Amino acid sequence: MLILHGFSFSNYYNIVKHALLYKGVAFEENKVYPDMAELLAVSPAGKVPAMTTEDGVNLSESTVLLDYIEDAYSEVLLYPANASERGHVRQMIKLTELYIELPARRLLPFALGGGEPPEALKEEVRNTLQRGVDGLNALATFTPYMNGETLTLADIYLRYALAIPRLVGKAHLDWDILASIDGLAAWDELMASTDIAERIDADQKANAPEFMARLAAKR
Amino acid sequence: MLILHGFSFSNYYNIVKHALLYKGVAFEENKVYPDMAELLAVSPAGKVPAMTTEDGVNLSESTVLLDYIEDAYSEVLLYPANASERGHVRQMIKLTELYIELPARRLLPFALGGGEPPEALKEEVRNTLQRGVDGLNALATFTPYMNGETLTLADIYLRYALAIPRLVGKAHLDWDILASIDGLAAWDELMASTDIAERIDADQKANAPEFMARLAAKR
Repeated sequence: MLILHGFSFSNYYNIVKHALLYKGVAFEENKVYPDMAELLAVSPAGKVPAMTTEDGVNLSESTVLLDYIEDAYSEVLLYPANASERGHVRQMIKLTELYIELPARRLLPFALGGGEPPEALKEEVRNTLQRGVDGLNALATFTPYMNGETLTLADIYLRYALAIPRLVGKAHLDWDILASIDGLAAWDELMASTDIAERIDADQKANAPEFMARLAAKR
Repeated sequence: MLILHGFSFSNYYNIVKHALLYKGVAFEENKVYPDMAELLAVSPAGKVPAMTTEDGVNLSESTVLLDYIEDAYSEVLLYPANASERGHVRQMIKLTELYIELPARRLLPFALGGGEPPEALKEEVRNTLQRGVDGLNALATFTPYMNGETLTLADIYLRYALAIPRLVGKAHLDWDILASIDGLAAWDELMASTDIAERIDADQKANAPEFMARLAAKR
């Protein structure tokens, strides 16, 4: 059976878990944290999540895992069939990753550990986030999903990628991403209302104390 | 005809151009720089390269363009047919992007503009680069290509992604990436010896004065 390696507090882990549950793929969860040597055997850059495929190949990086499960389990599809439209969906995922999630993550140590980020860093993060906001405003319709009437991997990716921008936006940027992208707030409620999202959110909450304790022990 | 938007000095532009030339896809080049409003119409985050497909759809982000041309032009393939192996190749591209190219790029303003990066930034960049080096040492065989006997998109991606790590490694980190990854130096010579690489390198060199003049005018 396919094995998903990582932990439920991780948003990147939850992106892949959501896609697996939505597609109805059978999988086991193997709880592993970034500070465990076990992780390096399946993810050579030491990043969560990773996956061991049914044919025994180890893969890492969430977008790589998403493309893999879409390739390998094609009964329920989360990319459009047309190549240009598939490119459009991949583009929305990429803009979310590079210009929404990753820049916001640079402020996370301050949001978790206290202290205020330097003004120059905040400015750099704001400028990059603006690219992402402009990009999603131009590309995503939210009618009701990002690519129209059908849920795609872009919706699943964005749902979990929003967590850190929301946190650091409030804590350090005086900024609410839900108000910056047309249609995002209503879409966010829609995405939260499914059984799969509720299950993942509950698993994340249950894992929070253990994850936070590990983080505190490292400091 | 497919249109590739961007400029020849850009390494990301050259990744996509190399793949198009290798696959024998007919395309036009439309020279556009990041500071031109024209770019936003085809790339809403303002990034080079972008593409207008034959059916008139605009796409941006180099990995998105690579996946698109692989989907849309399947006569010559640059991903393996097997899903797990394709995942392995995508993983090497992703590690190159996130842990080799992007961290090195954070030192580029210092390498181009003069001045020494703060020690804390250099340390952060070094740590991230180490993940990438460990990852590629674990995953890429260089026999002679990264995935074995057949050239894949991972090879094309890495060739152009090395430029900035090489530059900033020498300028600021006392570090040579070619010596850090087993087999990389010989692979790099092999990759440079093809007609396509020579053409792209010549186009890049020819574009350098104009690009540098625009950069200087902005300062």
